[in-house]
Amino acid sequence: MAPLDQMSKDDRLYRMRHSAAHIMAEAVLEIFPGTKFAIGPPIDTGFYYDFELPRPLTEEDLDVIDQRMRRSIKADLQFVHDEIGKDEARRMFADQPFKLDLIEGITDERLSLYKHGPFTDLCEGPHVDRTGQVGAFKLLSIAGAYWRGDEHNPMLQRIYGALFETQQELDGYLARVEEMAKRDHRRLGRELDLFSFHEEFGPGLVYWHPKGGRLRTVIEDFWRQEHFRGGYDVVYSPHIGKSTLWSTSGHLDFYAENMYSPMDVDGQDYYVKPMNCPFHIQIFKSQTRSYRDLPIRMAELGTVYRYERSGVLHGLLRVRGFTQDDAHIFCTPEQVGEEIGRALDFMMFFLKAFGFEDYHVYLATAPEHYAGSREDWEMAQQVLKDEVEQRSLPYDIDEGGAVFYGPKVDVKMVDLLGREWQCTTVQFDFNLPERFDVSYIGEDGREHRPFMVHRALLGSIERFVGVLIEHYGGAFPLWLAPVQAIVIPIADRHIEYAHRVVNDLRAEGLRVEMDARGERMQAKIRDAQLQKVPYMLIVGDREQEAGAAAVRHRDGSDLGALPLFQIIDRFKDEIATKGQPEN
Amino acid sequence: MAPLDQMSKDDRLYRMRHSAAHIMAEAVLEIFPGTKFAIGPPIDTGFYYDFELPRPLTEEDLDVIDQRMRRSIKADLQFVHDEIGKDEARRMFADQPFKLDLIEGITDERLSLYKHGPFTDLCEGPHVDRTGQVGAFKLLSIAGAYWRGDEHNPMLQRIYGALFETQQELDGYLARVEEMAKRDHRRLGRELDLFSFHEEFGPGLVYWHPKGGRLRTVIEDFWRQEHFRGGYDVVYSPHIGKSTLWSTSGHLDFYAENMYSPMDVDGQDYYVKPMNCPFHIQIFKSQTRSYRDLPIRMAELGTVYRYERSGVLHGLLRVRGFTQDDAHIFCTPEQVGEEIGRALDFMMFFLKAFGFEDYHVYLATAPEHYAGSREDWEMAQQVLKDEVEQRSLPYDIDEGGAVFYGPKVDVKMVDLLGREWQCTTVQFDFNLPERFDVSYIGEDGREHRPFMVHRALLGSIERFVGVLIEHYGGAFPLWLAPVQAIVIPIADRHIEYAHRVVNDLRAEGLRVEMDARGERMQAKIRDAQLQKVPYMLIVGDREQEAGAAAVRHRDGSDLGALPLFQIIDRFKDEIATKGQPEN
Repeated sequence: MAPLDQMSKDDRLYRMRHSAAHIMAEAVLEIFPGTKFAIGPPIDTGFYYDFELPRPLTEEDLDVIDQRMRRSIKADLQFVHDEIGKDEARRMFADQPFKLDLIEGITDERLSLYKHGPFTDLCEGPHVDRTGQVGAFKLLSIAGAYWRGDEHNPMLQRIYGALFETQQELDGYLARVEEMAKRDHRRLGRELDLFSFHEEFGPGLVYWHPKGGRLRTVIEDFWRQEHFRGGYDVVYSPHIGKSTLWSTSGHLDFYAENMYSPMDVDGQDYYVKPMNCPFHIQIFKSQTRSYRDLPIRMAELGTVYRYERSGVLHGLLRVRGFTQDDAHIFCTPEQVGEEIGRALDFMMFFLKAFGFEDYHVYLATAPEHYAGSREDWEMAQQVLKDEVEQRSLPYDIDEGGAVFYGPKVDVKMVDLLGREWQCTTVQFDFNLPERFDVSYIGEDGREHRPFMVHRALLGSIERFVGVLIEHYGGAFPLWLAPVQAIVIPIADRHIEYAHRVVNDLRAEGLRVEMDARGERMQAKIRDAQLQKVPYMLIVGDREQEAGAAAVRHRDGSDLGALPLFQIIDRFKDEIATKGQPEN
Repeated sequence: MAPLDQMSKDDRLYRMRHSAAHIMAEAVLEIFPGTKFAIGPPIDTGFYYDFELPRPLTEEDLDVIDQRMRRSIKADLQFVHDEIGKDEARRMFADQPFKLDLIEGITDERLSLYKHGPFTDLCEGPHVDRTGQVGAFKLLSIAGAYWRGDEHNPMLQRIYGALFETQQELDGYLARVEEMAKRDHRRLGRELDLFSFHEEFGPGLVYWHPKGGRLRTVIEDFWRQEHFRGGYDVVYSPHIGKSTLWSTSGHLDFYAENMYSPMDVDGQDYYVKPMNCPFHIQIFKSQTRSYRDLPIRMAELGTVYRYERSGVLHGLLRVRGFTQDDAHIFCTPEQVGEEIGRALDFMMFFLKAFGFEDYHVYLATAPEHYAGSREDWEMAQQVLKDEVEQRSLPYDIDEGGAVFYGPKVDVKMVDLLGREWQCTTVQFDFNLPERFDVSYIGEDGREHRPFMVHRALLGSIERFVGVLIEHYGGAFPLWLAPVQAIVIPIADRHIEYAHRVVNDLRAEGLRVEMDARGERMQAKIRDAQLQKVPYMLIVGDREQEAGAAAVRHRDGSDLGALPLFQIIDRFKDEIATKGQPEN
């Protein structure tokens, strides 16, 4: 084995994390005699090991295991590789049913083992040389996990650990985990009263509360306004359609597993829509279109319903009903370059408005089997590539990664924690125009098939708001904040003036509330900060006399007393510029 | 029989119309020997008669029948009443199978006949004395109708006639019918490209086209903005819910015939929502509410789906999927008066914005069986009555006409043709709060049941837009018009300037398009008028030089050349005041 420091970082970390899993298993087996141990791989940020134990573990157990691990590390024991025959392995792990199960699954006659000190595991490796080389780690949590991930098998206890080469890297990671937990949109959704789910009435279905609804309305108003400005038409289509629609579109053939079962209306099957496209095509087809009418850009905030296994549902990020910010562009071959370019510009404009300036573009090209002609695909791929390059957007090519109906560009935006989130998608469709026989009359007086491009910028309102909550940690910039300012009267005698402040600001379209509770001022300020309200406007005798309010920002900064008209101007400026948050 | 002029108008008209039906049957039997005649009653605006004829009737046949009728009227034949036995009747109508069918349905042994001239009908009367007394009539149309309205019976041909006492009244009615046909929202929906239906993919489901979508967006934006201003919260809820929701709400028991059959998700029944209420209740219940949090006014533009027989579907006025402008108000008993009053004021504000100043209020009171206590009903009814009276709204009481869950006020608005349309409804609910165990903590620290009020102002966006189209005859006031102005360059050399005009007006948020087609100016003006675009802005050399446009209104009036800034100001004023249309 080459020395650790001559390996790639990935290789080193893999060995360290894998070895730490063994060291943890050694500790658990020593502390809990009779433990049955299952598997313990390295993972992205550390490692885990699954155990069957005589009792449920507690947080305190993690400390004891941690200490025992550090003793083994201090002893700097050597990892030793060995190979034995299957029968010998069966004897060696005679009291370890999960290992026996694994042995039966291995086809080779010789099995690989790694030992260190008293501990031996069935293992392909690789490992570090000695236990002293495993780096900086921390045991994080305990979770239940079925043996082989199958719910018919016994539930085991999984211990997760984080592991990095240095304490500094580990600390950085742990701080990031803590920050992520604080920003978890499910937690903030509850704390800021934005939305809820009601498992008993259907998992994965979002109930938008008043404040979440306000946020959604601000986003949707902005979206519609900019779409009108951007030359789009906004349409509305039904949420259900007869089976004839979905058989013509082909969804019943190639998309059925994502659709709900049909309902019966007058003896006909109707389906809740998983997509808006077939409806927009009907609107396009509702009259004869000429090349002079193109491009037609049809946009809809269309709520669709798709089946997802309940196990993969995750807050707003993975739901069963979501509102796509959908659009379909119908255009001539000559227009397609400009239309793709406009869609990419529009994407950048929108993401920037929400504080996302970094993104990665993925260009997916033709799979083995596809609808449409080779020429159309090549032309479309070239257009996508050209337009992405013209905008100097960093991109990767996902060779053969497109769906059968057309090449596409997917965009992942990078949030303030450096995580990537899929949002925008721009996809050619060489399938539906054919299936629905979509055409326009060209300059030559003949029927032609238009190019059709599907496009979503935010992806879905639900998912986007989920990402947005995590991105901003719930501290939305002023233009998005459901409540933009809270007026806090210092004493009851200031309530009347506080009302005036509220009304004056509301008359200017600002979202302002008053906290007239009988609490102390400091408590009200703290509550407003917990609710991440951007501004607190505190009013007492002096402010009342001056027609002013003392302005505090949620970040704690004190802007002093300002006359109301100045506050209004300041807020309006900050809204107009979509001022990004302070943190 | 008393002389005609001593009878009530209703009685007179009934006899005249009934007699005209006989005269028409006489004519048809004479013109088409072998005709089988069925029934011919008076109706609201005239009469009809159903016939089985040797061939389909044409428009020209109506003229011939009309002339033959006028001959009989001129002859001023007497209507003679007679009674005969059943057997004699069977012999008399031996070759008239529909009459024989009717005879078998009559339990009396003596049957009533009316004769005039050569024609005899099985008939209870009453009639006018002589054919000369039937008034002014016009045969209108031919339609198919099943014998006894049953599709298993033969299809007959029905001839409709309009009949009034005087020619003047008839002319007035015919003019109104013509006006209604011109304003028919289905026709205008097509002509103005506002929406479509696609029977083959599901009847009663609206596809909103770009222009209709624009109109809908304007209405919904206005609605949301005013609701925020009016102290409402806007929420969003899913379109589907598990059966548990609908069994708790009771909809599966008492509303099932209006709901679609369930779809299966993970072995559970899910239903498309027919109402939004149960979802709003969940949002209310998502945290403990104190009396200090009340009233909570939760509003949603919630699209619901309900079953309607396909035969009763009618354009936008009766559909299967519609968007209620729904709200639920949760309040204490002390607040209920003010909340009802606010809802009524809000209703008047909204209807006025759309040009409806007349409406009739109907107050429906407790039916025999109802949910909740006598006291609550009486209190609620009194509140409704007081608040309606305080606003001097004309109202009728519909004694016992409420649904079982609570008393209500329904409002019918009167359109420019004097027709009444159901829109606003304000309903107490003494049922759902009980079923979902909704409560708040009162000042006494104990749990109390809040009052819950359902409320829709426009009713549904679909229906309201349908009414609005007929109300305005498609000539929407400026603030609602999907396209507010069309810029018409006189020659190609003015296109560049026309672009500038379009852009300047759009930058001010105005909805402006250009007609750059190679057509003559007069043709473009005519097309814009047909599309009922409020303003045409014509630009030629002089306008270009002056930074102006010649402004024409769709009503034909010429406002002369105005500088662009003045046009913008003028339009903005007209939009701000929601200027009602000219006609």
